[in-house]
Amino acid sequence: MSGGGEEVSNKQILLRDYVTGFPKESDMIHTTGTIRLKVEEGSKAIVVKNLYLSCDPYMRNRMKKPDAPPYADSMTPQSPVLGFGVAKVLDSGHPDFKEGDLVWGTTGWEEFSLIQAPESLFKITHTDVPLSYYTGLLGMPGLTAYAGLYEVCSPKKGETVFVSAASGAVGQLVGQFAKLLGCYVVGSAGSKQKVDLLKNKFGFDDAFNYKDEHDLNAALKRHFPEGIDVYFENVGGSMLDAVLLNMRYHGRIAVCGMISQYNLDKPEGIHNLFRLITKRIRMEGFVVLDYLHLYPKFLQLALQYIKEGKIVYLEDTIEGLENAPSALIRLFTGQNVGKQVAVVANE
Amino acid sequence: MSGGGEEVSNKQILLRDYVTGFPKESDMIHTTGTIRLKVEEGSKAIVVKNLYLSCDPYMRNRMKKPDAPPYADSMTPQSPVLGFGVAKVLDSGHPDFKEGDLVWGTTGWEEFSLIQAPESLFKITHTDVPLSYYTGLLGMPGLTAYAGLYEVCSPKKGETVFVSAASGAVGQLVGQFAKLLGCYVVGSAGSKQKVDLLKNKFGFDDAFNYKDEHDLNAALKRHFPEGIDVYFENVGGSMLDAVLLNMRYHGRIAVCGMISQYNLDKPEGIHNLFRLITKRIRMEGFVVLDYLHLYPKFLQLALQYIKEGKIVYLEDTIEGLENAPSALIRLFTGQNVGKQVAVVANE
Repeated sequence: MSGGGEEVSNKQILLRDYVTGFPKESDMIHTTGTIRLKVEEGSKAIVVKNLYLSCDPYMRNRMKKPDAPPYADSMTPQSPVLGFGVAKVLDSGHPDFKEGDLVWGTTGWEEFSLIQAPESLFKITHTDVPLSYYTGLLGMPGLTAYAGLYEVCSPKKGETVFVSAASGAVGQLVGQFAKLLGCYVVGSAGSKQKVDLLKNKFGFDDAFNYKDEHDLNAALKRHFPEGIDVYFENVGGSMLDAVLLNMRYHGRIAVCGMISQYNLDKPEGIHNLFRLITKRIRMEGFVVLDYLHLYPKFLQLALQYIKEGKIVYLEDTIEGLENAPSALIRLFTGQNVGKQVAVVANE
Repeated sequence: MSGGGEEVSNKQILLRDYVTGFPKESDMIHTTGTIRLKVEEGSKAIVVKNLYLSCDPYMRNRMKKPDAPPYADSMTPQSPVLGFGVAKVLDSGHPDFKEGDLVWGTTGWEEFSLIQAPESLFKITHTDVPLSYYTGLLGMPGLTAYAGLYEVCSPKKGETVFVSAASGAVGQLVGQFAKLLGCYVVGSAGSKQKVDLLKNKFGFDDAFNYKDEHDLNAALKRHFPEGIDVYFENVGGSMLDAVLLNMRYHGRIAVCGMISQYNLDKPEGIHNLFRLITKRIRMEGFVVLDYLHLYPKFLQLALQYIKEGKIVYLEDTIEGLENAPSALIRLFTGQNVGKQVAVVANE
């Protein structure tokens, strides 16, 4: 069976093989395939042109050999890398989508994608913001920050909030949301530039460069002499162990990610979990997919905050599909400053 | 200032010094002091005769040099060991207590205790059960099991529940409560005798001896092929790490204790916390002291279950105050079979 329309060439980034250890550009392959830009008669698929590709830490976990039980479906070697993105519909066999629609959701790392089950995509109806925001502030990372902070942690005015990887796609929003709730917010990041951004652009009360700290426990004690009520966990490892020593009674830890552990064969050991008891701490892992029903409510709030100038968002964009692999790897070297996006096309 | 009445001799067990490593009988000192069995004029204290002393794992943590922040107040070297117990009021300056009242709560390891702030004691009004039950089933361990299971985990009918240290003071109740809720319940313990008790006396669906299992992950997979919904954590360490690999989506872990870690200088590392994210697990530490307001409701339920024969309770009693130190140490060697109690006097 062949799709309708002419075949056109389609630049693609394929996963070479399951990744072990630190991801490298050579784990991904540049190739050029072909694709028909019309869907088959009777199919409910859509064909999209990919505009912005989202580079997110969780993708590393989908590049692993699938273990049981899987975190999310693993990517398939020799197939396009999968991730969130913003795309334009070129042709649709699905009644909910039509040519010209803009969507965000899971797509492939290629110029054009045939999406067999478009029901999981979100249609973009507010276009008076940068479209790339739907890979970040108004997309999966934004909803992640919102769900993790509001739903999992429920911080109250006056509480203390600590965010790790705080200048990243999620962290910068967690901090700003927490400030809007009236919390005292400190973030950690991995460079002086990022620390400056946290304090001066994102309005955190304070921030520190974890790479400059010999003793993370001491650093946290300095920043939270009275302890931490809410920790938004993005990194895992020794930072988590130090945070556990500094949590207050009835503290909440939203476990969103553990980027420091993703490239290790065996995760580091966490030694201070007895504090969960002594401080009556709730530690809860979450995945944004469980909160998609909140997206309309979140979107309304975020759009309003943007309009009122209450939220800013920093993207780190790299031009060209061919540069998407290096963009992804920047996440694990900490080179990205803000939400990492690869631009395939602007329209 | 001297108390009223004659001085009488008072056998006592003192803490020698802060304990490090595995507790030994020699960490406690036998001595004989004196006490007046009347309270001072105008005092709101009470004098009690101690009947049953409760031996509980958490006591080990109160024998440590106090760290910041403390778990519970550390005991004081050269002063009586502190713990829960059942006692009879000999004299009272407090309007809520009178001679002959039976109470349970924190007391000293000695024949007679002067309790300066008796407000924290519970008066025993139901005496048609063994009085020693107020150190276990109807006391702190019972309320711990109830609060941890009902309040922290909220298991639903048909869910799978795993309990470690399952034949202990708390574990045997957790399993029975969970069975009464309609759950599938498996427990682990450290001897064949305890495993038999779990299956045949306490009505667990299944049980295993963790000391016989080379691979705890495999043992849990065997007992929970579909995974664990609720884990009642009493032991910590490698069991916790194995449980994390076997939790189901949206599982709950009530962190009650980590007895395997209490005598270690540095707790073991836990490596599988990323599962909190992938399986959306909530892990929550709790301390029974936060649930004392539920005691009346719990007591009513437990008394009814006893009357209806729906709950059994196994105690391991040792006679004599002088044998209380060895009774306490039995908890850490796993020699106790059921709730460990030291009997000072029967009335």
